[in-house]
Amino acid sequence: MRFADKLLAISRKNKSWLCIGLDPDPELLPGVDVLQFNNAIIEATSDLVCAYKPNLAFYEALGTGGFAILEKTITCIPDGIPVIADAKRGDIGNTARAYARALFTVFGFDAATVNPYLGFDSIEPFISYRDNGVFILCRTSNRGATDFQNLCTDGIPLYEVVARKAREWNTYGNIGLVVGATYPQELQKVRSICPDMCFLIPGIGAQGGDLASAVGYGVDAQGEKAIINVSRQILYASQEKDFAQAARNMAEGIRRQINTHLASRPGAK
Amino acid sequence: MRFADKLLAISRKNKSWLCIGLDPDPELLPGVDVLQFNNAIIEATSDLVCAYKPNLAFYEALGTGGFAILEKTITCIPDGIPVIADAKRGDIGNTARAYARALFTVFGFDAATVNPYLGFDSIEPFISYRDNGVFILCRTSNRGATDFQNLCTDGIPLYEVVARKAREWNTYGNIGLVVGATYPQELQKVRSICPDMCFLIPGIGAQGGDLASAVGYGVDAQGEKAIINVSRQILYASQEKDFAQAARNMAEGIRRQINTHLASRPGAK
Repeated sequence: MRFADKLLAISRKNKSWLCIGLDPDPELLPGVDVLQFNNAIIEATSDLVCAYKPNLAFYEALGTGGFAILEKTITCIPDGIPVIADAKRGDIGNTARAYARALFTVFGFDAATVNPYLGFDSIEPFISYRDNGVFILCRTSNRGATDFQNLCTDGIPLYEVVARKAREWNTYGNIGLVVGATYPQELQKVRSICPDMCFLIPGIGAQGGDLASAVGYGVDAQGEKAIINVSRQILYASQEKDFAQAARNMAEGIRRQINTHLASRPGAK
Repeated sequence: MRFADKLLAISRKNKSWLCIGLDPDPELLPGVDVLQFNNAIIEATSDLVCAYKPNLAFYEALGTGGFAILEKTITCIPDGIPVIADAKRGDIGNTARAYARALFTVFGFDAATVNPYLGFDSIEPFISYRDNGVFILCRTSNRGATDFQNLCTDGIPLYEVVARKAREWNTYGNIGLVVGATYPQELQKVRSICPDMCFLIPGIGAQGGDLASAVGYGVDAQGEKAIINVSRQILYASQEKDFAQAARNMAEGIRRQINTHLASRPGAK
């Protein structure tokens, strides 16, 4: 099934645009190993999310066994829920092909994040997997994002140029954008450039982004396609034995808030 | 030992600015496995190079066992030769810290390539490892590089802004730049902005970059600090049983050409 269809189906079923970032930090785990932790988080939240998003950095940091843990984590995720590889890959042609094969064929991710700095031929090998989603970094949620992403060419900031190029490159309809919640006006602007694309929106919670504006500005005209990612706030809601239940409670609360904001946005049914 | 010192020491000892990219493609290997292949290439060339550069994509593409092969490959490399992780990582603060720890502490690389799109806080966790080298992507060697890297702000293309920022951020002296051989004039320009930095120069060989201008424009005033990377042209010089000897012959030839260009550049002793 195409990524976008799978995403919409589970989002409607679970009434949720919440994505949980599976970014396990061994120093913060409450007396369980990484796989046990991930599995407990997934079991406790799989009816509350539209996707899971493991960031590959946290698995690389576990050493040579890290990617086996990642693979096992993916198998713990119920079939209908898409899994997004937060990998932010970007490399030249033949290398990008190796990365795309690794993520989509070897590990079986439904979607991946990619970095636009190297241009079209670094992204093309990913989008050629038409059933997979490809989220291009547009406006990231971190403080340093302005260093280059806000540089203007003919009055247009780089992140907007990236959004326009992404729209132009979206022949197969499988491109999405990463736009941080920490810059609501930029999010609004990017949504106006790409009204139909799926957005992956990090920056809520630990990073300080405002949920109301992330939802209000992030969704499309139907009030959909804005994947709100939360990682630390849910994973480490408790660092005691009750961590899975605490994660569930936190996820449930955030899902409710998202849905409240959705219901109260202008034009909502 | 600091990366830059290790690099200069081996470069002078081996009379070489050649780096070999260890990018094994299982479909091109002549009846040996990846580790045997890498080991044979290293044994055949370790007196001819200034560094080795595995690109992590090719190890990820091998599946969950790929990083164990990468780790074993690193142990095959003689002590005095620096190993550069071509990873092109770029992520927000706490994730960038996980990537830096993975590359420098867990795998023990001497240096790594990083992507500048996310700005300073995505790079800071890498440069805080003062003994390790950090090569920021500046002007890449691929065709799509112009899509964003040549966009001008106040008449200055993005890759030049990146070079200037890299110079500004280089407090610990461990930042270098990736500048492709396929754009010699841009290489010359970037060298004028960062006269003392170490450059990693891909794009020779399969990608069509000109070696004479890569050397002529890439080196610093002392005729050093231009790491010329070659991958496929050496690795697959022969796809028969004699692949290691063929790789050695090719590497020897390229080293000789580099040194000829070095000797004939204006101002050479």
